[in-house]
Order: sequence, then structure tokens, then C-alpha cells
Amino acid sequence: MALLPEQITRAIEEFSKLPGIGPKSAERLTFHLLRSGRASPERLGQTLIDLKRDLRYCAECQMVCVAERCPICEDASRDRSTILVVEEPLEVIAFEKTPYRGLYHVLHGVLSPIDGLGPEQLRIAELLARVASRTVDEVIVATDPDVEGEATASYLRQQLAGLAGKVTRLAHGLPMGADIEFADHITLREALAGRRNLQ
Amino acid sequence: MALLPEQITRAIEEFSKLPGIGPKSAERLTFHLLRSGRASPERLGQTLIDLKRDLRYCAECQMVCVAERCPICEDASRDRSTILVVEEPLEVIAFEKTPYRGLYHVLHGVLSPIDGLGPEQLRIAELLARVASRTVDEVIVATDPDVEGEATASYLRQQLAGLAGKVTRLAHGLPMGADIEFADHITLREALAGRRNLQ
Repeated sequence: MALLPEQITRAIEEFSKLPGIGPKSAERLTFHLLRSGRASPERLGQTLIDLKRDLRYCAECQMVCVAERCPICEDASRDRSTILVVEEPLEVIAFEKTPYRGLYHVLHGVLSPIDGLGPEQLRIAELLARVASRTVDEVIVATDPDVEGEATASYLRQQLAGLAGKVTRLAHGLPMGADIEFADHITLREALAGRRNLQ
Repeated sequence: MALLPEQITRAIEEFSKLPGIGPKSAERLTFHLLRSGRASPERLGQTLIDLKRDLRYCAECQMVCVAERCPICEDASRDRSTILVVEEPLEVIAFEKTPYRGLYHVLHGVLSPIDGLGPEQLRIAELLARVASRTVDEVIVATDPDVEGEATASYLRQQLAGLAGKVTRLAHGLPMGADIEFADHITLREALAGRRNLQ
């Protein structure tokens, strides 16, 4: 005997499919929406139905956008000689909080043979075409410092050799505010190897 | 300059309104749905729009349901002389995993003056009418063992005096599998006060 109405169990099921949301949180979210004052299920529902509507990828950098090109690629004041390569669109937002004012390229993933993600599944061909078609002084590879990110960076370095002026990688080391006592030995090794002269 | 298309920022905003979902998780959920294989934004969206459709409260126990009465109140095999009072519909589901086979009553909240929740905002009048209209041997008050839950239990005890055969409260004590070393002193006091003879 089903105790809960079908539409409620269906909502719990759909929420459970989201990353980081277990069955208990899914129940809590569903009943929160049922009681809801601030968040209404209809408004969230319509927002999600509209999420992909008119959405496409920037013809140049592959960022999500609604026009043919994203606002960054359209911005004439950006330094067009540098391309920063990231895994996901959100990382563009993160770098926009830094002084970086070059262009971007979004791969939409990393090489991960175990998940069936090869170079064809990523926007790598688009990056190579972009770099080949005009003068790019520097391609900064900003994939995550993990196994897949490192493999992707190494693959890109090979593919970009001769195409771009230079190919660089983000510095590894201690994050600001870190406690050396608790840093892992790989980070400490990288921090030592990348040490710089005090001015 | 808005870097993200409006429908994406709107989805992030709506997700952030849900309990336990901060801005970072909201971003992650939104982009997960954009890439989605398993969970599609359209399916979750439609599910949420349908969530409240045809949904109502059982005329007897106030559980969420689609018919006039919920499956439990309709079930002739249940013991109709006992009513277990809970705060929320999900707690009915929890008690259904125990051997309890009486009826329920869902308050849809607890007394909480600070949130503007008085007896009129809860389904207390419905409970009193139910108990007054026929013979009820026992009302088990199963509100949470916190300040609001205790206040609600105490209010219900006063209101139900003379109406029900007896009004009981769930036992307090050590949860199964607990470590006495780490139990708080209030729980230990309750466990001592409620001690039982070993058979």
C-alpha cells in the first residue's frame, strides 16, 4: 500500500537523482516545497522547464549563453591574445572575480576514459581550431589539479604544441590562509618546487 | 555585465531558497541539470509543477492524500481506538515501519509563537473534534523532544483531558546503539527516570 500520493514519491525520486541529495534530503525538500511560503514548487518547476530554453554555447569560447557569442567574447576591451581553458562554465565565473581579462575556452568536462569521455566528447577540436586560426600568445590550462585534470592538461599541451605562443598551467602550491601543518605532502612538494625569490 | 544567461541565474536563485542548499550547491545542481543524463530539468520541473495538483488532506487524520481519506484511515483492519499524533506527514511513514497499527493525526507543525504558529495554525481543532466524536482509548503524542514539541505536547494534554481515555507521550531515553559515554545529561536523566524492570 502506497502511503504517500504518487506525485510526492515522484518528486522525492527526482530530487534523489541530484548530486549530494540523498533520500532523506529529497523528502525534506519535497515537504518543504509542499508547505512552502518562500519557495513554491510551481515557480521552481517552471524555472527548471525554462532552463535549457534558448540556451546555446558561445560559437567562440563554448560558454553557455543565449546569443551567438557570449558577453566576454563580444567585449572588445578583452585581451584576445590569451585564452584560459577551463573544465566548466562556473569556473569562468570564478576567474572573472580575479584581475584576468583575457578570453576563455570551456571544455565541458575532462578526459576520463572510465566515464567514456575522450577528446571527441570535449570541446577540444573547437579550441585547436580557434588557436590555429589566429595569433594566440598564451594558452593557460586551468583544469583541476586531479588525475583527470592533469591528463587533460598534458593532452592539450601536446595538441597545442606549435599552435600557440606558449602553453602554461596554473601554479600549484599552498592555498592562501592554509596551515602548513595540515598540508598534504604532494602540495608541499609542489610548493617547494615552485618557490619564488622574495623581492 | 551578466555573465550567465538569465534562466541559469534564476534557477540558481530558486534552488538557493531550499533548506540546506547554499549558493554553491545551487550552482552545482543547476549545472548538473544542464549537463544531465539521468536527471533532466524538464522532468524535475514538470514533477514539481504537478506536486500540489489534486493534493489534499485526509478528512480524518490530515495526512496528505489524493482521495477524501488516506489509505490508513480507509483501512478497516487498523485499530481505531488509538491515535498517534505527529508533527509532519513524513513521521507517519516513519511509524509505519514499526509494529504500530492504530490511526494517526498530523498536526502540520508545532506550537511556536516566535514563528507565529499558535493552535489555530495547526490541525488541533480537527484532533479535538475527532477525539470528542467517538471513543478513543489512547492518544499518543509523538511530537519531537525539543522545546516546541514539549510545549505542543503539554498543550495537547490539557486540551485532551477528559476527552480521551488516556494521553501518553513517547518514551525518552537512550537511542538503540548509543554510546552512554557520549549521551547528554538530559537524555541520561530521562533514561534513569524511565528505567524499567528487567524481566
